[in-house]
Amino acid sequence: MPAYKTPTKYENFSEWFEWIIAEADIYDYGRYPVKGMGIWLPYGFKIRQHVINIMRNLLDETGHEEILLPILLPETIFKRESEHVRGFEEEVLWVTHGGREELDVKLVLRPTSETSISYMESFWIKSYKQLPKKYYQIVSIFRYETKMTKPMIRVREVTTFKEAHTVHEDFSDAERQVMEAINIYKRFFDTLGIPYIISRRPQWDKFAGAIYTIAFDTIYPDGKALQIGTVHNLGQTFTRVYDVKFQKKDETIDYAWQTSYGISERVIASIIAFHSDDKGLILPPIVAPYQVIVIPIQHTDQDKYRKVIEYSNSIVQKLREAGFRVYVDSRNELKPSDKYYEWELKGAPVRIEIGYREYANNLVTIFRRDTLTRKTVALDSLVDEVKNMLEEIQRSLSERAWKWFKEHVKMASDISEALEHINNGNVVLMPWCGYEHCVHEKIESIEGVDALGEPLPTSLSQLGISSPSDKHCSFCGKPALKYMLIAKRY
Amino acid sequence: MPAYKTPTKYENFSEWFEWIIAEADIYDYGRYPVKGMGIWLPYGFKIRQHVINIMRNLLDETGHEEILLPILLPETIFKRESEHVRGFEEEVLWVTHGGREELDVKLVLRPTSETSISYMESFWIKSYKQLPKKYYQIVSIFRYETKMTKPMIRVREVTTFKEAHTVHEDFSDAERQVMEAINIYKRFFDTLGIPYIISRRPQWDKFAGAIYTIAFDTIYPDGKALQIGTVHNLGQTFTRVYDVKFQKKDETIDYAWQTSYGISERVIASIIAFHSDDKGLILPPIVAPYQVIVIPIQHTDQDKYRKVIEYSNSIVQKLREAGFRVYVDSRNELKPSDKYYEWELKGAPVRIEIGYREYANNLVTIFRRDTLTRKTVALDSLVDEVKNMLEEIQRSLSERAWKWFKEHVKMASDISEALEHINNGNVVLMPWCGYEHCVHEKIESIEGVDALGEPLPTSLSQLGISSPSDKHCSFCGKPALKYMLIAKRY
Repeated sequence: MPAYKTPTKYENFSEWFEWIIAEADIYDYGRYPVKGMGIWLPYGFKIRQHVINIMRNLLDETGHEEILLPILLPETIFKRESEHVRGFEEEVLWVTHGGREELDVKLVLRPTSETSISYMESFWIKSYKQLPKKYYQIVSIFRYETKMTKPMIRVREVTTFKEAHTVHEDFSDAERQVMEAINIYKRFFDTLGIPYIISRRPQWDKFAGAIYTIAFDTIYPDGKALQIGTVHNLGQTFTRVYDVKFQKKDETIDYAWQTSYGISERVIASIIAFHSDDKGLILPPIVAPYQVIVIPIQHTDQDKYRKVIEYSNSIVQKLREAGFRVYVDSRNELKPSDKYYEWELKGAPVRIEIGYREYANNLVTIFRRDTLTRKTVALDSLVDEVKNMLEEIQRSLSERAWKWFKEHVKMASDISEALEHINNGNVVLMPWCGYEHCVHEKIESIEGVDALGEPLPTSLSQLGISSPSDKHCSFCGKPALKYMLIAKRY
Repeated sequence: MPAYKTPTKYENFSEWFEWIIAEADIYDYGRYPVKGMGIWLPYGFKIRQHVINIMRNLLDETGHEEILLPILLPETIFKRESEHVRGFEEEVLWVTHGGREELDVKLVLRPTSETSISYMESFWIKSYKQLPKKYYQIVSIFRYETKMTKPMIRVREVTTFKEAHTVHEDFSDAERQVMEAINIYKRFFDTLGIPYIISRRPQWDKFAGAIYTIAFDTIYPDGKALQIGTVHNLGQTFTRVYDVKFQKKDETIDYAWQTSYGISERVIASIIAFHSDDKGLILPPIVAPYQVIVIPIQHTDQDKYRKVIEYSNSIVQKLREAGFRVYVDSRNELKPSDKYYEWELKGAPVRIEIGYREYANNLVTIFRRDTLTRKTVALDSLVDEVKNMLEEIQRSLSERAWKWFKEHVKMASDISEALEHINNGNVVLMPWCGYEHCVHEKIESIEGVDALGEPLPTSLSQLGISSPSDKHCSFCGKPALKYMLIAKRY
């Protein structure tokens, strides 16, 4: 038992989050001597690998090809596209010296890779026969954040940036790709049990260089919205500047069309934020480094203890053969209660406790992390029981998350009502006429509150929200055609 | 058939290497607008992933834990250890600006991570109970090379640097770790069929900050030696400077002992350099993105062609179920001969050609890339035949590589004999008294020739070379105790 009072998830989320990532051996933050940069620790690194693998599978099976571009790009190439540069120039890091020499041309640490990949696509893309072309990479990107940094959420080195870049022969194929990307991200977040609302960002908040941006937002335990994924239709912005031309079927030459879409380690922060309680993490089995922890319980009689160990080993073997990720915690220096505490903190979904009683009766005691309940089952049914329990945990974490999420999306028809909801830890949907200038001046002038955009109809139906056709715009009183999503955001 | 004469591996290796990595879709080099930086293309990226996975498995099963440290480190921390800094300061890249602001403290892009991990270990390591501790990461590192750059071999961003960092309670445990690391690397290179000679580097050529360095060198088709792995015993160099102290069993406090060891994408360059011919790559099945390419051969009779396609699909399914990585090349716009040319270039170890004759007789024609031979087998024996052939290719590539390697390690007892061997594309072992100053002035004054160190006895016996006990030092005439490895190097 810790001597100090640990922070709690809903009362002081930021402290709780920093406590859990440190204690559960996930991410070392704040001790590294550069602000806004942290270290993935062994246990956290394993979670990260499982998350990355899920994303890789989704992209590979939809025809995306993984590549790896350099981190550095010359200023001269980076600055060719002026709108994009304006969006990023305040927050890029510059390499100016190599050894003792000053470089002839400064190099930028990529904040994202639209510019460098477009430059290369001018060599790679020649003909409509190659299109659509879908590239992706999973890399570090750098943003010199001047706002308050937060581990995994707002950092200066984003270590886990999955960026996809696609090339198309016309606008409509790029539109199709935007839909494909949205569906991939939905499947990704659904697999992880992270709830979301999908919105078309207002023009003033789109990606620098895009025609439009679609964003996935989730809600954190403190009621703030966090952007966890974006999809951009880039039109011909970059292909015109970097001269990405191709021959069409009719033998004319045109600039290609592009999309890009990105996901970062905010996804991992969101797994932690949603699936956990004040005792620690609760990992969805699909990303848990160890899905089952086996703990042989010591016995004062050494012969009996030996039987317990043998019995535990046979159980581990059975579970591994069945394909589960299993870890045996046989550290002698710790009491069972210390081990229970540690694995509850680290969020192992299922724990198996094996004492002499279990051995003697061919039984197994199984502890379920999310409900904190125990049951004892016959050895014969072990594999089925564990399989069912892991599936049940996976399903139940997702259901619980979505239930909480839906409860925190509120409706409001005027600004004071909206602010009340927001101050109580919610995000708000407001009926809206659909004109951006109507919402812009009213909302963006309120300190700390933003208009995040127009939720997509499919996203609204997923939340059980019907169209606002019988309502009026919360800002101007004209008939409402849409909703605007309003929230405090990270 | 290409219209120009392609370069050949043994006559003009550098051109051949650049030709093959471009044509086989491995690595785009020379077009990226920063010198010494290249792009992993989809096919090359897949090879790289297989190589990384082999290394990960070897490290994980020996108790290494994967982590991820930031790329940037403040000058103040980086410069604490003076010997290390002297070794790297001419070749590091510096970040001096964030946005439009000049940074208070310059940041270095890591050239390697001994300094940053030692800084963090001062927080992480407290007690002998945690030791030995073995960390690793697979990351990009940066060296501002002033020598001529070469794709994958001498680059400014090394994109695939596996660096392990270990912590120990005393010198002898660090020694044990050096041996463990050597054994891991041997297994790694043996798995890939890359031959090597293992030497203790001369003091003037050890890693900056190490007590000593053990290096793996291989020989390239042009006869030059290339360092492909290093293992360093770091002693307490970094732990004293970064204050990595721990409590020993006897309750006294001491600085910890460290080792580090690294491997880069030179390994992938070496796979290409060894296992290939003038037609292109020959990939060892263990790292081939596709182990088997299936090519259904078109038929003018559409009904018959449909049968061929169905038959091909059933073969693909059988092979996938057996666990092979299979790709079906069913592009209609290409002739079979074009496909053969392409997959020979890209080094697919086995190709299956399916025409109507094969369908009608329940046969399969299998082409083997390394021997360029075909055989026709009964469908029933397909899986066994493919399995055996892949194993045979894997074994045979390794044997062929070692045979060539051994032929290119020559003995010489004086400098003119040594230079003759070297100029004929070999490396040389020279009997040696064991005093470094004896070899240093004689060899290091010869333009382009280096003394790479003293081969380990185990490495000599692997090459079938006995001890030089009956010989005399090639430099001073005293009795020889050892050999010195002499070579042109990259």
